[in-house]
Parts: sequence; C-alpha cells; structure tokens
Amino acid sequence: MSQGRPRKFDETEVVERAMDLFWSRGYEAVGLSELVDHMGISRQSLYSTFGNKRGLFIRTIERYRETQLIQALDLLEREGSRIDNVKAVVSFFESLATDKRCRGCLVANTLVEMGPHDEEIASLLEDTLDLLQKGIERALTEAQAEGELAPGKSPLQISRAITNAVIGLAVTGKLRPGAAALRDIYSGTLSMLD
Amino acid sequence: MSQGRPRKFDETEVVERAMDLFWSRGYEAVGLSELVDHMGISRQSLYSTFGNKRGLFIRTIERYRETQLIQALDLLEREGSRIDNVKAVVSFFESLATDKRCRGCLVANTLVEMGPHDEEIASLLEDTLDLLQKGIERALTEAQAEGELAPGKSPLQISRAITNAVIGLAVTGKLRPGAAALRDIYSGTLSMLD
Repeated sequence: MSQGRPRKFDETEVVERAMDLFWSRGYEAVGLSELVDHMGISRQSLYSTFGNKRGLFIRTIERYRETQLIQALDLLEREGSRIDNVKAVVSFFESLATDKRCRGCLVANTLVEMGPHDEEIASLLEDTLDLLQKGIERALTEAQAEGELAPGKSPLQISRAITNAVIGLAVTGKLRPGAAALRDIYSGTLSMLD
Repeated sequence: MSQGRPRKFDETEVVERAMDLFWSRGYEAVGLSELVDHMGISRQSLYSTFGNKRGLFIRTIERYRETQLIQALDLLEREGSRIDNVKAVVSFFESLATDKRCRGCLVANTLVEMGPHDEEIASLLEDTLDLLQKGIERALTEAQAEGELAPGKSPLQISRAITNAVIGLAVTGKLRPGAAALRDIYSGTLSMLD
C-alpha cells in the first residue's frame, strides 16, 4: 500500500535541470509547468523543496557559482605563471561566448533581466562577480611580487577592468562573433597587462 | 460631425515612449495594453503604424541608434585629440552605467534577452555595434597617423576590445557599482591605449 511519501529525487540534478532552462531563456520567460516538466518533479515537490520559483532560481544561481565560477577560480590557483592563469580565465569566458546555444553567462543574463531591483538576487550576483574580481586581483598581486607584472600597474584596477570585459564577452557572444573578433577582444583586453 | 479619422500623433514621440518601456524592462515583459497606454495611442493606431509589437520594437532600436549611439559617434568627430575622443566615448557609456534607473543599454539588454534567435533584430544590433566599433577604429587609425597611438598597436584589435568593454559597462552598471570601481574600469580599459 502506498504510504503517500514523496518520490525521492537528486536535488542537485533537478537544480541543474532548472539552471539549464533559466540560463537559456531567463527567469520570467520560463513557466512553472515547463520547469516541473523539465525537472521531472511534481509542483508539490518544487514548493516543498524550494519554496517557490524564485527560491529555486536562487538555488540555480548558487549552483552556477559552484560549477561554472569555480572552474574559473581553479584556473587561477594553478602552479606556474600567474599571468598565464589570468589569461586562461579570460579564455574560459571567451569559450562561453562561443557556446553554440548562445546562453552567455547566467550572472550577466540575470543582471540584465533583473537589475538591482531584487536585492537578495542582486547581492548574490554581486558576491559572485566579487569572487572573480578578487581572484584575478590576487593573481595579479602575486604576479607583481614575482616581477611578472610591471610595478606601476594596479592589480585592483586591472582586475576590475578584466572582470568588466569578461561580462562584456558574455553579451558580445550572443551575436556569434567570428574567431578573429574574439581573438582581438582577448588580445586587446589582455594588453592591459603589458 | 466626426469623420472617424484617426487621431494624429507625433510618430517619433510615441516611438520614444515605447523605447522608454522596452529599455527599462525588456521586450517580452512589456504588454500591449501597457504599451498603448504609455504611448497614448490606440491599439488600432499601433497596428496600422507599426504592424505589431515586434515592428514597433524594431523602430525603437532604430530610434535608440539615432539618439543614443549618434551621441557617441559625434564625440569621435570632435576636433582635437583622437585619443581624447575615444576616452570621451568610454566616459559616455560609463554614464549609462551610473543612470539611476539602471536601464543599461538597449542594445546590450536586447542581445541578452533575444540572442541571435531573431535574425532581423540580431542583424540590427550587430550593425549598431559595428558602427561604434568602426568609429573607434577610425579614430585610433587617425591617432596612430598623428603619433598619438604607438605604431605597434592595432586599431582594429583595440577598437574591438573597447567595444566589448563598453557593453560590459552597460551590464556592470546594473549593480550600481561605486564611483571608484567605475573609475578603475575606465582607466584599466583605456590602458590598452598606452
């Protein structure tokens, strides 16, 4: 006899399925029916696990940070040249710009869609970008200490400008720019380090 | 006796009112009722003048180009230092990033919302960004001829990287960054010219 217990599901897996939809299409455009279909859970499970659509969305941004941003931060921790690590981070975001689905970056997309109007979400996005900017700044400070970056350069200033440029890449990529254009954006942006 | 003639209206003015809504909130989020209310025209006038919501939206992007982008291009045509003109363009987009309404840039917003999926709109956005990039490239080529930009620099590469950075600014601005952060993005980005 059924006990009426809710079907168990892998929370991480269903969050990633929701992330997939929000990343491709934004927050408002994705309906609740479509979400539960794509996640393979009941509406009741969505409510009991995530509260509501917004609660689920916040979990997908957190998951994005744990899966996507962490890859960029890991690149900064590699042994060897700190400057090469910063270049690898810009390449990483360049690869988002060449994604065939043109999804861009969930953080940049959400910033454009929601702006600063939802304070909790804006704060989460800001923290996420801060992690990236501070990671790059730390790498550049180390590069400077090791003589890889000229003494007159400001790691804070350059890390802010590079973070801004990788957000730009996430948007520029939506137009499917050619390889030559992307290479120029990459090289031009990194010439800040020269 | 009324002849039943449609009320006349200033087409440019109603397009700018529609632009205002789309710029603040995106394309999908703005409903038809809200549009006609804000534009002060009837639904019938909207259809007979612009075809449909999408046709109206295309006109607002064209109007955006005629009013906003033209300001940036005009800065590039000023007498005097070409490098100063390019700096003025980056400042201009920085001012979008400090707009209190956090609307960002209609072109960047639309790219994020629609991506490349509507070919006519994507092509219009691409042309708009090309105008900016080519304007900056031309200014940098002249700067190089006049010895303001080092001979080893590539006007094409730097203009592409600066265009990408100003798109970044339109998104970064949504988080209401502080003046110091904006100043760093500005100075870091322009250090590509050094």
